[in-house]
Amino acid sequence: MNLKLLKEKAEKIKWFVFDVDGVLTDGKITYDSEGREIKSFCVKDGIGIYMLHLAGIKTAIITGRQSEIVIKRSIELNISEVFQNSKNKLEHYNQLKEKYSLKDEEILYIGDDIVDIPLLKRVGFPVTVPSAPEEVKNFAVYVTIKEGGNGAVREITDLVLKLQNKYDEIIKKYCEM
Amino acid sequence: MNLKLLKEKAEKIKWFVFDVDGVLTDGKITYDSEGREIKSFCVKDGIGIYMLHLAGIKTAIITGRQSEIVIKRSIELNISEVFQNSKNKLEHYNQLKEKYSLKDEEILYIGDDIVDIPLLKRVGFPVTVPSAPEEVKNFAVYVTIKEGGNGAVREITDLVLKLQNKYDEIIKKYCEM
Amino acid sequence: MNLKLLKEKAEKIKWFVFDVDGVLTDGKITYDSEGREIKSFCVKDGIGIYMLHLAGIKTAIITGRQSEIVIKRSIELNISEVFQNSKNKLEHYNQLKEKYSLKDEEILYIGDDIVDIPLLKRVGFPVTVPSAPEEVKNFAVYVTIKEGGNGAVREITDLVLKLQNKYDEIIKKYCEM
Amino acid sequence: MNLKLLKEKAEKIKWFVFDVDGVLTDGKITYDSEGREIKSFCVKDGIGIYMLHLAGIKTAIITGRQSEIVIKRSIELNISEVFQNSKNKLEHYNQLKEKYSLKDEEILYIGDDIVDIPLLKRVGFPVTVPSAPEEVKNFAVYVTIKEGGNGAVREITDLVLKLQNKYDEIIKKYCEM
Repeated sequence: MNLKLLKEKAEKIKWFVFDVDGVLTDGKITYDSEGREIKSFCVKDGIGIYMLHLAGIKTAIITGRQSEIVIKRSIELNISEVFQNSKNKLEHYNQLKEKYSLKDEEILYIGDDIVDIPLLKRVGFPVTVPSAPEEVKNFAVYVTIKEGGNGAVREITDLVLKLQNKYDEIIKKYCEM
Repeated sequence: MNLKLLKEKAEKIKWFVFDVDGVLTDGKITYDSEGREIKSFCVKDGIGIYMLHLAGIKTAIITGRQSEIVIKRSIELNISEVFQNSKNKLEHYNQLKEKYSLKDEEILYIGDDIVDIPLLKRVGFPVTVPSAPEEVKNFAVYVTIKEGGNGAVREITDLVLKLQNKYDEIIKKYCEM
Repeated sequence: MNLKLLKEKAEKIKWFVFDVDGVLTDGKITYDSEGREIKSFCVKDGIGIYMLHLAGIKTAIITGRQSEIVIKRSIELNISEVFQNSKNKLEHYNQLKEKYSLKDEEILYIGDDIVDIPLLKRVGFPVTVPSAPEEVKNFAVYVTIKEGGNGAVREITDLVLKLQNKYDEIIKKYCEM
Repeated sequence: MNLKLLKEKAEKIKWFVFDVDGVLTDGKITYDSEGREIKSFCVKDGIGIYMLHLAGIKTAIITGRQSEIVIKRSIELNISEVFQNSKNKLEHYNQLKEKYSLKDEEILYIGDDIVDIPLLKRVGFPVTVPSAPEEVKNFAVYVTIKEGGNGAVREITDLVLKLQNKYDEIIKKYCEM
């Protein structure tokens, strides 16, 4: 990993776009016998996203599945845009870019499987997780050490905030309290 | 593991048959205090099964337990045949063979415990998981590295598609988007 | 571990008595926001208990907590006796011994914490799990390799059936089908 | 780790104050599709807290989130004070100190993220978990080996009771039964 290249890429990032299953969750698809779905997010990821927002970075979700739970968690985390049931993620990605007049290089995307390749190919800062297929990792500039739903998102929010020199000032606030 | 033998066996496979608990799930039997059951599947396995279908391979489930959740997940994944509450798995296996005029050598079965031995003995491509008893592993031509519910199914769908030379063309579709 | 001693102890065992949380489950106490409890058991443990019953060994549960879920799982597994809300486990242990005219040496107990010490001290075959406190392990003749809810019970059911020379004949049934 | 220093600090502790998510739980934020939340605690932590109370140490919770589940578990564990939805944890910490006339040095706090730094800075015995950010670990005198929700709390309750020479007498009660 070329840290200088990574820093150059990180400095341009204005938006984080997240896949859900396997990224914001551990990839478990859980149902109960009455048809309800259950999803688990990671409290540390939530604080990472909170820190992004403090630093002026905006966030979106593009996911191939559909769940009320994603709406609930997105509201809780103040995520700006949520695209669910996204059979063609490129379409929603382009909508996002257009609505906010974004360039590819201003966007970080984190996804974990082959359906995420079209977005990973385009964004300035493509990220994936350790359990992703090799073909997906080939398109990433950073593969997290932690797995999805277990701190992968926090790892990348911390990394980008550090590379943008914004991490320390957020921490400082808590250290001075 | 003899890769040439594995390739010969894989090339004949037209159907994947899955056990549920411990294979499509991590083997947890979960209830709530009002009698509901909860089951967790793996999103990456789902994409593996989707890839099988793209490649023209069909899929079935034969499970010794009974749950509405298995129906819901099977519909979501377009699984062709579901046999639940299967106290004698051989019986349902034979029904499946007859209905679709299948030979043993055209079937891959993945199971994780001693009740799966009769099927593992018969199918052309018997697979099990690392936590299976030794006696079960003895009947398998392939033991997955990943555990059930944590990518074991995706590991074997990827492996067979690669051995059938169908994996790259599916990936290519996403890489060219 | 003295295998000869273990075999002598195993040969006398007629009953298995299980703690629930941390033994038949991974020790998670799970609630939802409407007050329901959720518990996860291990499908492989269930097959181990089924094998015990095939071999003529009977089973009971003595647990300090109280949950409808334990009843449901016990019925499913044909467990003979269930004592819940057992603040003094010795009392229920003595009831069990009296009702079935059992001697201590005929009983295997598996528990994971300090409240289990009084039973571990008495039974012929005391077992605990790797995450138990040292003081508990000191009273065990066998500490499982696998954790509670992740195969600890299957490990000990397999071990005792093997030491009683009953394991192979059960497996053989499936191998000959 | 200076064991003498740790012992000096431990001997003064009269209250344990716990963060919830990532400390008493594994940090998973779980919802179902009808808006219910689900939380998992650790049965071994519960016994640790029970042992604290036997030793005359009191317990409180200060958490940034809000859930009925925390109330239910707190009642079950006889926790004396619960502060939820605590956007500024210092405020609730000061309320607790005032109400019970406590000094900082009499309080142990265990938290896992940057929002916990203001409390970790103040208490006599600040503790965190292995997955905490480095900046949080810098304020702790003890970092548990076990993760939150997987025995971290029991590890620290055992440690303090041992350093206060109260552990053995509690265990002895069970060993003599």
